[in-house]
Amino acid sequence: MNEHTSKNFDLELENLRTRVLQMGGLVEQQVRRAMEGLHEGDTALLEAVIRDDNRVNQMENELDLACNQVIAKRQPTAIDLRMIITVLKSISDLERIGDKARKIARLGVVLHDQHTAGAPQVELNHIADLALSMLRSALDAFARLDVSAAAETLHLDETVNTEYQAVVRQLITYMMEDPRTISSALDIMAIAKAIERVGDHAKNISEYVIYMVKGFSVRHVSPREIDEKIAAAS
Amino acid sequence: MNEHTSKNFDLELENLRTRVLQMGGLVEQQVRRAMEGLHEGDTALLEAVIRDDNRVNQMENELDLACNQVIAKRQPTAIDLRMIITVLKSISDLERIGDKARKIARLGVVLHDQHTAGAPQVELNHIADLALSMLRSALDAFARLDVSAAAETLHLDETVNTEYQAVVRQLITYMMEDPRTISSALDIMAIAKAIERVGDHAKNISEYVIYMVKGFSVRHVSPREIDEKIAAAS
Repeated sequence: MNEHTSKNFDLELENLRTRVLQMGGLVEQQVRRAMEGLHEGDTALLEAVIRDDNRVNQMENELDLACNQVIAKRQPTAIDLRMIITVLKSISDLERIGDKARKIARLGVVLHDQHTAGAPQVELNHIADLALSMLRSALDAFARLDVSAAAETLHLDETVNTEYQAVVRQLITYMMEDPRTISSALDIMAIAKAIERVGDHAKNISEYVIYMVKGFSVRHVSPREIDEKIAAAS
Repeated sequence: MNEHTSKNFDLELENLRTRVLQMGGLVEQQVRRAMEGLHEGDTALLEAVIRDDNRVNQMENELDLACNQVIAKRQPTAIDLRMIITVLKSISDLERIGDKARKIARLGVVLHDQHTAGAPQVELNHIADLALSMLRSALDAFARLDVSAAAETLHLDETVNTEYQAVVRQLITYMMEDPRTISSALDIMAIAKAIERVGDHAKNISEYVIYMVKGFSVRHVSPREIDEKIAAAS
């Protein structure tokens, strides 16, 4: 490969990475707007989130195609290849985060339509902030190829799961005390679950970053063992 | 590429495909055993399912590595490349079906430990049979590169979702009538959700098969439109 080709290839890879970060920014915004719409009871905003999910899907399709074209044209190997496979996998997780934002928005509309004055009052902003900070740091780790930042994101996932369990326990208490709240409590539980899944997808992206940089898979490995593996490999 | 190299390459691709089908057979068995253990209250079987999830994870790691090696060595293009990317994506979905089997088994153990004689009696075998038949036909479509079979699997997903909603409604009725059943009803709801997610992953695999054979993405497209697209392209 001559220098000119190699430079074009670098630009193509850089372009893929930039677009992943743009897509990441969009889905982050979608989750934020869904939570804001839910909190404010702003159904117009919630409807906009549902509508804008198409943009996320379109970005995934376009990036998927672009990756295939770069692989077919450049026949990359080693770290370049791992980078493209990481992009392919990451956009699939980002698209699913987009689905979660749409799901939160849909459930927000349902809760609003039922005029559920007696709906359980459960604080969801904290778990949402945690999941969004996981997404932000997973994207940062991807942007800077920062393995330590990726590993930190994995640790945060346990906090999100603990928070989710706390929300579920609160909701169960509501349901037991007043069975009329069961239906709306289940909707709120589904929202909490969607937020928790945002964290799972951010975790997946962080795992791909470690795989991309280090060349070994950290799926099915505990966060502590991952720290040890990274330390041993550096 | 000379004939000899090309023949070796064909064997490598065939080997990847065979291993995906083996992994598919394993996760199918895991889901079946989890449902059987749940139905019979056989905690030894449920514990075995939880333990055997490691085998699924290991198969994913090995296949992931094998795909990367084939891409790096053979630098495939067009349908060969799409096939390997399909394998990479499919094993991720199969691994998650394995996670669902483990989740069903774990919840089965919890339900059993609570000696919940008063637990809601909800029929889950029907939805499990539907989801498993989706998985089976997605794997068949993958084995035979059969786009029509893949498209049929996509249609089945709506039936699974409808069935899941019916289970949820039944469980809500139980909870409202007797709040003491709330906790176990939520566990059963989580099992139904895990089964429904098996169907979602089978749907993903079917979408990859269509993408692999036809070269266009059918994600975010309704089953009816997919039928039309396939008819127009053949």
